[in-house]
Amino acid sequence: MLKVKALLFDVFGTVVDWRSGIANATEIIAKKNDVQINALEFADAWRKEYQPAMEEIRKGRREFTILDILHRENLKKIAPKFNLNNLSEDDEDFLVTAWHRLPGWPDSSAGLKRLKNKFIIATQSNGNIALMVNMAKHSNLNWDVILGAEVLQHYKPDPQAYLKACKVLTLDPSECLMVAAHDDDLLAASKQGMKTAYVDRPHEFGKEKLFDIAEVNDYKVNRNWDFISNDFNDLANQLRCE
Amino acid sequence: MLKVKALLFDVFGTVVDWRSGIANATEIIAKKNDVQINALEFADAWRKEYQPAMEEIRKGRREFTILDILHRENLKKIAPKFNLNNLSEDDEDFLVTAWHRLPGWPDSSAGLKRLKNKFIIATQSNGNIALMVNMAKHSNLNWDVILGAEVLQHYKPDPQAYLKACKVLTLDPSECLMVAAHDDDLLAASKQGMKTAYVDRPHEFGKEKLFDIAEVNDYKVNRNWDFISNDFNDLANQLRCE
Repeated sequence: MLKVKALLFDVFGTVVDWRSGIANATEIIAKKNDVQINALEFADAWRKEYQPAMEEIRKGRREFTILDILHRENLKKIAPKFNLNNLSEDDEDFLVTAWHRLPGWPDSSAGLKRLKNKFIIATQSNGNIALMVNMAKHSNLNWDVILGAEVLQHYKPDPQAYLKACKVLTLDPSECLMVAAHDDDLLAASKQGMKTAYVDRPHEFGKEKLFDIAEVNDYKVNRNWDFISNDFNDLANQLRCE
Repeated sequence: MLKVKALLFDVFGTVVDWRSGIANATEIIAKKNDVQINALEFADAWRKEYQPAMEEIRKGRREFTILDILHRENLKKIAPKFNLNNLSEDDEDFLVTAWHRLPGWPDSSAGLKRLKNKFIIATQSNGNIALMVNMAKHSNLNWDVILGAEVLQHYKPDPQAYLKACKVLTLDPSECLMVAAHDDDLLAASKQGMKTAYVDRPHEFGKEKLFDIAEVNDYKVNRNWDFISNDFNDLANQLRCE
């Protein structure tokens, strides 16, 4: 594993807690508009539109469009279902940019700092550049380089998203370690020859929805990830970072 | 000026001392190959091929090609003129990647750190991503985001290079400050509505070649740059960074 030179990170769910961040912003807008809302359900509903919107682009039915725009379209789609009708443009902006202000998991900032001392740390996210930069500033995530969708013009898990990321770093896929809390992301990366590190984020979908323990054990036993870690500090320990 | 949110930096000459860095690497290779060489002249000759190579791409006569490849081509062109014939591939690699290991000016790392606390700091260089990332690791330049040629697919001073950089940050050009030691770069940026900061790097072309003082005074008096600074710490002071 000494060959690894760069760590490529999935961001939503792996580095930041999108569900709490979006729910908190939603509470503010719901209160302002005097609407009763289950903000966590709203966050889940908004997130649920994420994959279908990108799929249009992956399948070539729509030209490449940045996530900020997809988020806004999806917001307009789901808001009325929660009685958030006729949101002002300012309120829409506030919610769309809430994705730029997502909080890191408790270990994210400090863990990344340790990993950065030994490796190139890069985002490999479907988020656009402005989203990633603003989030990094907000949540103290000191990336070496912002890669991902807008730089590569491909959405994960399209193979080109992974291959182009390695290529722009002038590294062989085997020198790049994909870090994610999601099985499908790691599987797609490993198919392109990248190394893989699973990070457990059991609360991504809420504290009430811990992963089924049998499913977690299945990951740990039956998936051939190069690393299985509990958080970024655990990963830094396993990678022998100071 | 409080509107400025991001600082976009020219890199070669403005942030790093390419001439010393390339000359030092050249000395090593010349000695290894038992060739007498004026390493500073070699660095100048190599750098001189830089603009013509990019011009082919700017004019649309050649498809977009990253700087690492242009550097290698230009190296093959000039090396024989300095009796560096039949360089091994390892020696070529060492010289081409010497551009990835250029040293910052004495104030660069600390000055950028101060500026980063208040602003987004981005590279806006013709260098490719791997070059910029490796240089940042080597010389402790903690960018928020690597922009420039490979992300934007345009070489400065092509107007699109500046406009697309602002666009991917979701900022208006007037919210972006171009920082450079070069008149032409600032002029091209200002034409696209960006703010401008001149940084004096009198030793870019060698200690023996200080800019003609009349020329420097002409910059300071007759150019309408928003800021004129002696180095990054001076610029940080002017921008009221801690």
